[in-house]
Amino acid sequence: MAIKYELLKECPDTKARAGLLHTPHGTIETPIFMPVGTLATVKTMDPRDLKELNAQIILSNTYHLYLRPGHEIVKQAGGLHDFMNWDRPILTDSGGFQVFSLGDLRKIKEEGVTFRSHIDGSKHFFSPEKVMEIENALGADIIMAFDECIPYPATYEYAKNSLERTTRWAKRCKDAHKNTDNQALFGIIQGGMYEDLRTQSAEDILSLDFPGIAVGGLSVGEPKDEMYRILEHTVPMIPQSKPRYLMGVGSADALLEGVNRGIDMFDCVLPTRIARNGTAMTATGRLVVRNAKYAKDFTPIEEGCKCYVCRNYTRAYLRHLIKCNEILGFKLITYHNLYYLLRLMRDMRLAILEGNFLHFYKSAIDKIKL
Amino acid sequence: MAIKYELLKECPDTKARAGLLHTPHGTIETPIFMPVGTLATVKTMDPRDLKELNAQIILSNTYHLYLRPGHEIVKQAGGLHDFMNWDRPILTDSGGFQVFSLGDLRKIKEEGVTFRSHIDGSKHFFSPEKVMEIENALGADIIMAFDECIPYPATYEYAKNSLERTTRWAKRCKDAHKNTDNQALFGIIQGGMYEDLRTQSAEDILSLDFPGIAVGGLSVGEPKDEMYRILEHTVPMIPQSKPRYLMGVGSADALLEGVNRGIDMFDCVLPTRIARNGTAMTATGRLVVRNAKYAKDFTPIEEGCKCYVCRNYTRAYLRHLIKCNEILGFKLITYHNLYYLLRLMRDMRLAILEGNFLHFYKSAIDKIKL
Repeated sequence: MAIKYELLKECPDTKARAGLLHTPHGTIETPIFMPVGTLATVKTMDPRDLKELNAQIILSNTYHLYLRPGHEIVKQAGGLHDFMNWDRPILTDSGGFQVFSLGDLRKIKEEGVTFRSHIDGSKHFFSPEKVMEIENALGADIIMAFDECIPYPATYEYAKNSLERTTRWAKRCKDAHKNTDNQALFGIIQGGMYEDLRTQSAEDILSLDFPGIAVGGLSVGEPKDEMYRILEHTVPMIPQSKPRYLMGVGSADALLEGVNRGIDMFDCVLPTRIARNGTAMTATGRLVVRNAKYAKDFTPIEEGCKCYVCRNYTRAYLRHLIKCNEILGFKLITYHNLYYLLRLMRDMRLAILEGNFLHFYKSAIDKIKL
Repeated sequence: MAIKYELLKECPDTKARAGLLHTPHGTIETPIFMPVGTLATVKTMDPRDLKELNAQIILSNTYHLYLRPGHEIVKQAGGLHDFMNWDRPILTDSGGFQVFSLGDLRKIKEEGVTFRSHIDGSKHFFSPEKVMEIENALGADIIMAFDECIPYPATYEYAKNSLERTTRWAKRCKDAHKNTDNQALFGIIQGGMYEDLRTQSAEDILSLDFPGIAVGGLSVGEPKDEMYRILEHTVPMIPQSKPRYLMGVGSADALLEGVNRGIDMFDCVLPTRIARNGTAMTATGRLVVRNAKYAKDFTPIEEGCKCYVCRNYTRAYLRHLIKCNEILGFKLITYHNLYYLLRLMRDMRLAILEGNFLHFYKSAIDKIKL
């Protein structure tokens, strides 16, 4: 087995839990947020910046790496870790989300999906077997099964047909996965916003005994209450021994709500993407650094924040950099945003271990909603 | 006096010299290359990257900072050092080069220059007094007098009239400079490609007894032999006690030739600008990282280079980043290019101190011309 989840503590009155996830490239303290490094780089960040932030695992995108530089080149480089100079754990997604986001550019059949590259329009084909070949070549510690992430809203019938195909694809992924000693394959529960379909998908996926389970198809445009309802329904079906991963979620409130419902792992482009648009995340909400009112504001992004950026730079300077499209501005705000989210996860974990998560959660949620 | 130049050694058979330049923010080992931080940031670099590279002094642009964020904001931040979090020496240019590069957007009179912003077309006026006000507000250790940098080619009459006005402006700058204790004002010798005009300008500028002297109006499009001819004519007129600064020069061969002719200080956007276009500088010439032939090249930019980038990243990875317009790619190549130039300067200095600069120079020039 490539990975092992070790439960350390469940917090009374909530489903929040703290654990350790042992992987071939080191142990991850959960719950954890995974910064996204789409093209084998967490945008603007050097791996040593990420280590300074104590990022424990990053996510990279199979679809993007397949197109550029191509998984064969990454394999020749010795795998993704060597290619990008990151010796800590990596998770690769399956490309499913990206391929299905292509809309008219893709066509789904039982065998797989034909799609056109968003870069040059060239034609490609992803099947469960092809995706496993790519993910095996990339060599991440955790790899995701090829699934269909359906849009919101979707009809009951579409959601049912899709989740059943996703189950068949999950089985084919399991059969095609060539490197079980060093790479753990996670299954993905789908089923849209329908609780009985989530039950059906969970039973099917769990029967395949993957070492980790993701809840997919959420944070796709539905109201947040819908997401929380599906989580409350789905997470309790997943055995305690398996790490639980909520895909594509990275706002502070959703991380708090997800952990409160028993999620161990999250990823999202949000903190890095909004940083490059000049928006910082803080414990009291978002701060649009490029706003004119910060032109002469010589305080840090977040008073009391101990990150490198808040210790050394003012809002006025950061605003100046962002207004001038200076790369350093994008980088410094990215750094702060990742620090903020990783600190939030660490604080949640400490609260769980100390048995007072519920108190921490209520206080943090109240501040964000200010 | 804000600064003091200390001559350590002149190398036999050449005009190359090694020294120390003491400034309010520390001592610079000369000869030195100054990375350019146009908008209060050396593009892509964090100040701690620059310290790791052992950058000893950086240059920033008065024209650009006047327009964005405005010198008053920088002054309120406590000056440029505090604003950008750089506690080592800074030199600001006078804006002359930028303003005169605006072409049809500017109009020169004896009083000063009216120009339109390259950003929004707004109308502005730079006089020697105004430029001193701005540079005093920015607070750099070394500030440059407001001069006219004439184009190449220029007629004898234009060059003569211009240098005479530059001298009158230099006098007005000296009179207007308010912070002589903490900021050293350098004069600039002009005169185009005419040796007798260079003599005239040198005599005029030297008579004003600035603590440092720049040779301006070179590297503006003339053949390199012309630049070297003017340097050979001009530099010997500058007293040994004054630091000598050749403005706007940063190719490896020109640094070697400049040091060989007695120059102590250089600046140029070249290493940072070409990095963002995917071009790396090496001891044997330039390497266009984005070239297809490096797609599967898992060697570093420069074999044997000890910089962070060459120790950790391959040409294949850097090419991938550049092809994908990933910010980390621009940053890593910038890092290497600055390391390369700063190492070249350090190696030249060591050779001077050891008395074998001529040998070093010949060997290095031969390699670059390979």
